[in-house]
Amino acid sequence: MPLPPIDQADAAPEVRAVYDDIKATRSVPDVNNFWKMIAHHPPTLARTWDSLKEVMAPGALDPLVKEMIFVAVSVTNNCQYCIRSHEAAARRLGMTDAQFGELMAVVGMANETNRLAVGYQVELDERLK
Amino acid sequence: MPLPPIDQADAAPEVRAVYDDIKATRSVPDVNNFWKMIAHHPPTLARTWDSLKEVMAPGALDPLVKEMIFVAVSVTNNCQYCIRSHEAAARRLGMTDAQFGELMAVVGMANETNRLAVGYQVELDERLK
Amino acid sequence: MPLPPIDQADAAPEVRAVYDDIKATRSVPDVNNFWKMIAHHPPTLARTWDSLKEVMAPGALDPLVKEMIFVAVSVTNNCQYCIRSHEAAARRLGMTDAQFGELMAVVGMANETNRLAVGYQVELDERLK
Amino acid sequence: MPLPPIDQADAAPEVRAVYDDIKATRSVPDVNNFWKMIAHHPPTLARTWDSLKEVMAPGALDPLVKEMIFVAVSVTNNCQYCIRSHEAAARRLGMTDAQFGELMAVVGMANETNRLAVGYQVELDERLK
Amino acid sequence: MPLPPIDQADAAPEVRAVYDDIKATRSVPDVNNFWKMIAHHPPTLARTWDSLKEVMAPGALDPLVKEMIFVAVSVTNNCQYCIRSHEAAARRLGMTDAQFGELMAVVGMANETNRLAVGYQVELDERLK
Amino acid sequence: MPLPPIDQADAAPEVRAVYDDIKATRSVPDVNNFWKMIAHHPPTLARTWDSLKEVMAPGALDPLVKEMIFVAVSVTNNCQYCIRSHEAAARRLGMTDAQFGELMAVVGMANETNRLAVGYQVELDERLK
Repeated sequence: MPLPPIDQADAAPEVRAVYDDIKATRSVPDVNNFWKMIAHHPPTLARTWDSLKEVMAPGALDPLVKEMIFVAVSVTNNCQYCIRSHEAAARRLGMTDAQFGELMAVVGMANETNRLAVGYQVELDERLK
Repeated sequence: MPLPPIDQADAAPEVRAVYDDIKATRSVPDVNNFWKMIAHHPPTLARTWDSLKEVMAPGALDPLVKEMIFVAVSVTNNCQYCIRSHEAAARRLGMTDAQFGELMAVVGMANETNRLAVGYQVELDERLK
Repeated sequence: MPLPPIDQADAAPEVRAVYDDIKATRSVPDVNNFWKMIAHHPPTLARTWDSLKEVMAPGALDPLVKEMIFVAVSVTNNCQYCIRSHEAAARRLGMTDAQFGELMAVVGMANETNRLAVGYQVELDERLK
Repeated sequence: MPLPPIDQADAAPEVRAVYDDIKATRSVPDVNNFWKMIAHHPPTLARTWDSLKEVMAPGALDPLVKEMIFVAVSVTNNCQYCIRSHEAAARRLGMTDAQFGELMAVVGMANETNRLAVGYQVELDERLK
Repeated sequence: MPLPPIDQADAAPEVRAVYDDIKATRSVPDVNNFWKMIAHHPPTLARTWDSLKEVMAPGALDPLVKEMIFVAVSVTNNCQYCIRSHEAAARRLGMTDAQFGELMAVVGMANETNRLAVGYQVELDERLK
Repeated sequence: MPLPPIDQADAAPEVRAVYDDIKATRSVPDVNNFWKMIAHHPPTLARTWDSLKEVMAPGALDPLVKEMIFVAVSVTNNCQYCIRSHEAAARRLGMTDAQFGELMAVVGMANETNRLAVGYQVELDERLK
């Protein structure tokens, strides 16, 4: 019952233009299902791609660190599609098994200590105010 | 009504030993309220400190990257105490305003696209299965 | 290993009475799996149906707006069953593709800006206090 | 800017009747702010009280266990008001510091291992299917 | 310790331009703290404002419905700043107390039934697949 | 594309030692997939097992109550694997259908009232401060 993905061949020109930019920017032969689904709302497709391209570009943080942060959020939100696609992106950028292992360890501990801080209702220290 | 923090002077020996290790490891004069609160359950204090010390140590990822991942999770979970204390830790390790800005931008985009992927019920691409 | 759904034929009288009311109220030939599962705890079945019938009825908000709000929450919580069943309900009430697209866009942006507000620890403006 | 709590003296008869039942059921001199706030929508007040009274009553689980489960959910959702009020309720029912400490420890570990299971995308074991 | 808000007088030209557009679009004398905080990262400020302006504009859904959906997400995510500012926006667009009451009732029920569906591990009905 | 589970036969000695301790402690013939996945990062495997063994042991709370709290958190976080495995553990410890039904009812109501408290921005009562 979910909407079907929109393939390049069936896409309206404004959608096709975004697909072409994704393929050119990432040097990939086809776009992921994520883009083929949000293409049902072309303004969301265009806006999301423009935003993601800007945010994930190299800057003060390198792209691998950005992808690992993306995975950390996706794991915390339990988004399977997002974990798989951004873990894949991180591995293409060189993430090793040891780095993935440490990433998961930090994500796990942060989720645990977040709840301890909340559960014990810890007050801000003076120096953190 | 929350429990009061347990200061060093009032701490049982097993708690004091953990406080001393935190202060020595981090070269700080006193421990944060977080530790003074979970000290109400000494096994949780000891276990959490041992775990955090191991997980946040330099390894395949450097400590600044780990702190930024910690902040990303804490923002997603909306834990004020955790954001403040780990943002402070990241800044002590050299995080610049530009890096913080990009960190927040990635966290924001990840939270947005996580929901688009879920809301459109995107199927895994063959290559991600 | 999860419990099996309880079909009408196997249901106790108190469960059957709720099923009958759901079918009559919604003019449907059978109840969804959701009801057949929570029927394992008859007080939960009765209470949840009574509550949902009251809350989702036409009132100060029209039923389509209520279903879209339900979808917004379900996407944020990542509940696949809930998204599918309430998206279906919204479409039966007339939700168009364009409305669904805007709904998802708002849900995505709200999740993004929620985290920016939390991450930057924005203080309440005077006029919002 | 939030709505003001509705005190008993200013309450409409239908609201006052719920307040009276809460006070009688719990043997307390006044109702909590939670009730005085949702009283702005009388059907929500009546429905929520009826539901909570039914769900939290002694049954197959004893009331203290129910309150601790309530705290566990509230900590995971980061609802300060809910944590404070249900921790208070649990303590009135006899929860000791040691029990609270173990409750927090379980909540912390569950939040950690939830993310490890999700992050590693663990498949269901045959016996769990 | 959080960053200070950046007032118009201290803002760089690119930030001031966004502030001016917000004030003109919304006919308000000053921008909210939210914008003054994310202004610390000018690309995030510009991108977020452009996106929000596009997404919240009248379209297939009217602006009041969009604001109520925004509130629903913000309540589910427990973002105080977001609830206050978007509840205020919804009230400016005409949301009545009765509508707010029903909005909260739907958000509450959705959060409850989301967990019942997940906890009972409800399978998708054939017609929802 | 996720990593494969690491079976006992292929496990490094440090991993095998943990598997052996899990099997001995729980009197089970094999370890769950959860352990076989986090075994990709042996320090996480060892730390998580040590922590879980300590936290879930009989103490001020009995093991069944601890497993039900674990299920409550896992349902709130929507972790299918965690729900299934800890519901199974709770049933092995004697959880009845009636107890499971009440557990789900409390989890559902807590998630609902958490959002009502947040949405109405309820202030702490004096006695809860």
